[in-house]
Amino acid sequence: MTTLLTNAWLLTVDAVMTEHRHGWLLIEDGKITALGGGTAPQIEGAEIRDMGGDIVMPGMVNPHCHMAMSVFRGLGEDIDDRLFRYMLPLERKFVSPEMVRAGSTLSAMEMIMGGVTCVADMYYFETEVAGVIDRSGMRGVVGQTLADFNPPDHRSFDEGFALCDKLVDYCAGHSRITASIAPHAPYSTGAAVLERVAAWHDAHPETRIQIHLAETEAEVAWALDTHGISTTAVCDRAGLLRPGTIAAHCLLIDDADIDALARSGTGVAHNARSNGKAGRGMARVEDMRAAGIPVGIATDGPMSGNTLDLFSQFGVVSIFAKVLGHTRSALPTREVIRMATIEGAKALGMDAETGSLEVGKQADLIRIDLSAPRMQPIYDPYSVLVFATMPDDVRDVMVDGKWLMHDRKLETLEPAKVLADANQVADQFRAEIAVIDADMAAKG
Amino acid sequence: MTTLLTNAWLLTVDAVMTEHRHGWLLIEDGKITALGGGTAPQIEGAEIRDMGGDIVMPGMVNPHCHMAMSVFRGLGEDIDDRLFRYMLPLERKFVSPEMVRAGSTLSAMEMIMGGVTCVADMYYFETEVAGVIDRSGMRGVVGQTLADFNPPDHRSFDEGFALCDKLVDYCAGHSRITASIAPHAPYSTGAAVLERVAAWHDAHPETRIQIHLAETEAEVAWALDTHGISTTAVCDRAGLLRPGTIAAHCLLIDDADIDALARSGTGVAHNARSNGKAGRGMARVEDMRAAGIPVGIATDGPMSGNTLDLFSQFGVVSIFAKVLGHTRSALPTREVIRMATIEGAKALGMDAETGSLEVGKQADLIRIDLSAPRMQPIYDPYSVLVFATMPDDVRDVMVDGKWLMHDRKLETLEPAKVLADANQVADQFRAEIAVIDADMAAKG
Repeated sequence: MTTLLTNAWLLTVDAVMTEHRHGWLLIEDGKITALGGGTAPQIEGAEIRDMGGDIVMPGMVNPHCHMAMSVFRGLGEDIDDRLFRYMLPLERKFVSPEMVRAGSTLSAMEMIMGGVTCVADMYYFETEVAGVIDRSGMRGVVGQTLADFNPPDHRSFDEGFALCDKLVDYCAGHSRITASIAPHAPYSTGAAVLERVAAWHDAHPETRIQIHLAETEAEVAWALDTHGISTTAVCDRAGLLRPGTIAAHCLLIDDADIDALARSGTGVAHNARSNGKAGRGMARVEDMRAAGIPVGIATDGPMSGNTLDLFSQFGVVSIFAKVLGHTRSALPTREVIRMATIEGAKALGMDAETGSLEVGKQADLIRIDLSAPRMQPIYDPYSVLVFATMPDDVRDVMVDGKWLMHDRKLETLEPAKVLADANQVADQFRAEIAVIDADMAAKG
Repeated sequence: MTTLLTNAWLLTVDAVMTEHRHGWLLIEDGKITALGGGTAPQIEGAEIRDMGGDIVMPGMVNPHCHMAMSVFRGLGEDIDDRLFRYMLPLERKFVSPEMVRAGSTLSAMEMIMGGVTCVADMYYFETEVAGVIDRSGMRGVVGQTLADFNPPDHRSFDEGFALCDKLVDYCAGHSRITASIAPHAPYSTGAAVLERVAAWHDAHPETRIQIHLAETEAEVAWALDTHGISTTAVCDRAGLLRPGTIAAHCLLIDDADIDALARSGTGVAHNARSNGKAGRGMARVEDMRAAGIPVGIATDGPMSGNTLDLFSQFGVVSIFAKVLGHTRSALPTREVIRMATIEGAKALGMDAETGSLEVGKQADLIRIDLSAPRMQPIYDPYSVLVFATMPDDVRDVMVDGKWLMHDRKLETLEPAKVLADANQVADQFRAEIAVIDADMAAKG
């Protein structure tokens, strides 16, 4: 199977940000085998697709998500105790393989439609998420969560580790899916379990570790009270910081923590919109990147950041960096695009396969329609992508050389069915929310 | 002319946020004459439009913009001295009635397509902007700028005031357009001119005053050095703070400044994305609103915030308030929608005509398509509007009872011509930018 893309504004996001204003790109058996500017070569038997002068760039990488939670989107917005009032009770009652499948499929659909081709997920019943990613055609890291708060799919850490083993078996040999163990956070697992996670990863070096790290003040207080050190240092001492670990948030960190993350080769998922919406603050992205830490741009779950495309994140990511740096020149737009693509891939340990358009990599790419008046005139493609592009401007999406969306038409998912399945779950939630609200009202 | 909207999810944004999940709304001769929930009345001869269960809400109000500057969009992004390197030289060379017309028309088109029905503009050759607003069908305040830095259309303040007089004549009797005088900022006009502006407004009470206020540290330093007081206090002393004055930014203000703004009845235009992109910081929106100041959500010019819809602003506006307040519950989503509609209208002194769906007001309204997967499921319409809606979800737009857009098709503007005109200006800029860049390179 050979596909030739012609008439493309190619943004390769390679090491020197090579750009071909009039470019072409050749895909053979799922891999990029040639690309360049000027006249495209004649390739016998190739499917030829004219990109109409639109931007063609690497598919984006979302390094932290809870896909199943799309069914919670916007629930209890603005309510400080929404976690305890709505989400945990609803999760305990309704999280099931079917719910995970419905919610994750809606999220996969939204991500494909918004130009995300690779995602790192962490939730429960994670083999279901692996199935969704498989069928949708995306690339992904699937993380089975471990936690001590009576989660929906395991009653003990032993059971949790058994689920991780099962997930490894499920993903074995799958070219697009990587298994991951996902201790929820330092405070909800504890140092001993973190050490056990590190040992488990030693025995499964093809997997990844995902963890929420340095996200809340309560977490920082827990680490100080129980260990006398930072929460990042707790992880470091447990051997959890390493290549293959993706730490989400890293908001409440000091210089020593940054040093530990950088030395260890840990990747970071920056969740600007989620952190901002929770009123938690602005992560030190420029300091982390200056230390050499790969920092990807993540959506967090849809109950935290609402939307699952990275374009919705760019404004907040940029503005946080510029406000922290007190200058317009902080985190320039092309660096934002690097974070959203190659750096996210590096944070996931997948930069050999995806994140840039280079010969030898898998063909994970997206096409951006530039016709919306809000994008015109164009002086700089990176400025347009960061500050004027919306997810609906994504016209075509390819992963592994296979079209997942073409001219806004999805090739692997049926929108009507996906929406109906998700809304069926939401209807169950609505009935239970009415009970919860009535109960609260009765209590005054 | 009578139009009946049926099957609408009506968000009225009246004083008690009345909502009709299954609502109807009647428009006669440009005004809303009845609305309600349940079965719509039978109206002989009315044009009936089924809203398909979509949200119908007030058209949004953008209380601070420089519409003509769309032709600068994204130019010199991330460059701290872009103002002096590119914008001022280009403005001096190219700002003309034709350029103002081309840039402002592109902006009007983008605003209509993004659900903005009312805008307050300030720039040069402002009668041209008035003409654009007239032809586009929008509602607006047009502000002739006064400044001391050799601006493109006046060589002295006397000439500037003469342009304001001309603008008043031009707008006289126009039901959708209000003339405004727009001293650029305290430091670029000076206290004596501000006093003259106040006197001019006394003589033209039907007009508005627009000014950039408390935006930059240089401005604060100027006020302290020259007057020993805050920049807001300089305006207060000059008599400029009053009902009918719209102060844009109000970023660097203290409690006394907030008190002065509130006491005087001044309206504020909050430019979160522009302030953030410039690295300037986060305005004290909750404090200003608590003091009773009407605070609208503004885009600033497209060279500052890039896009001209308010949906692109909502995430940043919300997140700034939540980060400043250190809580998820700061500035709830329904307050954001109030700011974008009725409060923006109040800041412009136009809340008797627009900003909410109430009997007796002009029919300025928009319809929001809810079908995008990123918006589903829906628990709360305000959450969807603030955190998941994009400008392209706006399907219909009406001002004064007249459709400006229907099913995404513009009724008053020709997109191909508008884009061609704007890009013709941009081509002139590109040639000059090449000269500027070559000159800089030669100088090393």
